[in-house]
Amino acid sequence: MITSTSNGKVKRLIQLKKKKKCREEEGVFLAEGSRMAKETPAGLLREIYVSESFLKKQKELAKDLENRCKAGIEILADRVFEYVSDTQTPQGVLCVVQKPCHALAEIVRGECPQLLLLEGIQDPGNLGTILRTAEGAGVSGVLLDEACADLFAPKTIRSTMGSVFRLPFVRVADLKEAIHCVKASGIRLYAAHLEGSLPYYQQDFTKPCGFLLGNEGNGLKEETAALADARIKIPMQGQVESLNVGIAAAVLSFEASRQRSL
Amino acid sequence: MITSTSNGKVKRLIQLKKKKKCREEEGVFLAEGSRMAKETPAGLLREIYVSESFLKKQKELAKDLENRCKAGIEILADRVFEYVSDTQTPQGVLCVVQKPCHALAEIVRGECPQLLLLEGIQDPGNLGTILRTAEGAGVSGVLLDEACADLFAPKTIRSTMGSVFRLPFVRVADLKEAIHCVKASGIRLYAAHLEGSLPYYQQDFTKPCGFLLGNEGNGLKEETAALADARIKIPMQGQVESLNVGIAAAVLSFEASRQRSL
Repeated sequence: MITSTSNGKVKRLIQLKKKKKCREEEGVFLAEGSRMAKETPAGLLREIYVSESFLKKQKELAKDLENRCKAGIEILADRVFEYVSDTQTPQGVLCVVQKPCHALAEIVRGECPQLLLLEGIQDPGNLGTILRTAEGAGVSGVLLDEACADLFAPKTIRSTMGSVFRLPFVRVADLKEAIHCVKASGIRLYAAHLEGSLPYYQQDFTKPCGFLLGNEGNGLKEETAALADARIKIPMQGQVESLNVGIAAAVLSFEASRQRSL
Repeated sequence: MITSTSNGKVKRLIQLKKKKKCREEEGVFLAEGSRMAKETPAGLLREIYVSESFLKKQKELAKDLENRCKAGIEILADRVFEYVSDTQTPQGVLCVVQKPCHALAEIVRGECPQLLLLEGIQDPGNLGTILRTAEGAGVSGVLLDEACADLFAPKTIRSTMGSVFRLPFVRVADLKEAIHCVKASGIRLYAAHLEGSLPYYQQDFTKPCGFLLGNEGNGLKEETAALADARIKIPMQGQVESLNVGIAAAVLSFEASRQRSL
């Protein structure tokens, strides 16, 4: 059992929690809580840390997790676990998980893709919620540009509620190039734009399609919107100027889902 | 100019920021930032506080605000303003605002109401986003039960982006009674329910209607759902068990908006 916060393993976990750079160097991230532990595919599960209390109270689950992970489980004193945890009331289980890896080619394939293409989404909670909502709406893949927040930050991972393991996504270095690739695959791209002239619900989303969504404050860059096949708007009443980007993504994705169910 | 954080006025502002009870006793709340200051109806604007820097940099706006408020403006030293502020990087303007007051009778009236009825929504950010989204989707009024978070907490007020001044809402002591009143006004009530048998998009929302939405973790209470005219679900793909309540509210409200625009 690790009883000191100055233990080398503990220091590394703190680095993985706080630093994107460290997560990138190792190609791993932290997934905290029983639910995330259960949802992590065995093939990606690298290490498991549990608190002393967790081991006592959740013997079955701990045994189960131990069997799924080659490296076995490591026990942390409760105080040390609290130190490592990113939550206010830690559940007592934390996994080091290998980042899932998807290719753009995989994402544009498939019977009738419905994609989200995200540019510069800054808020980690927004990003997590978008992933969770997208899976529910039947989105088949998500593209993120380099300016988007890190999907593997602890808060984002938690807010995906496991969708991070099920919904293919890819971070692209060059969004423009990726857009060309998506369009070349026969996927029609719609830019969500405040000045779009076409209400979203007048479009046909039953064909392969993708939605381009931009930064919370500024929306899509003009040069990005210009690459879309069409600009669509979500007509708004009252004096609301714009919607939260997570809400906009949900409204568009579920409209596609609705149309595809008819 | 107030230069001390132990000034009585400063202490009161801190109380109004932190304590729901104090906001209730005085019937006021704090609205921070230039945008909120501009959007506050003059009739509700009780007091305005600006930082020394704000006064220097935004002379025009400060003059403008001063003209709109009987009590004039009070200046706080920057350090004191930071102490009072609820944000990380304060803009330097803070208003004490009288709570808007609406009656249930007013909310159920109108040509073709579209209501949201919220039960036990706990997250202040969720609540604010729901109000903002609802205004955009043409919702005509919102009912909140006593178990919902305080709409007038600083974070919630900010996240409404001014909708709190434009969208009528009422907190009801007895949700059951309010539901009866809503139904008696000829408004059809739909309970958003994971076990609803009817996909939401198969319903006719062009008639007067309202959506009942429940707590983030537990959904609607069974006894509340039982009072609705119908239970509807948002069909979900993948392994997503539920949507964030703000997302669910958006999907339902914008579907009503879509149907009403056809």
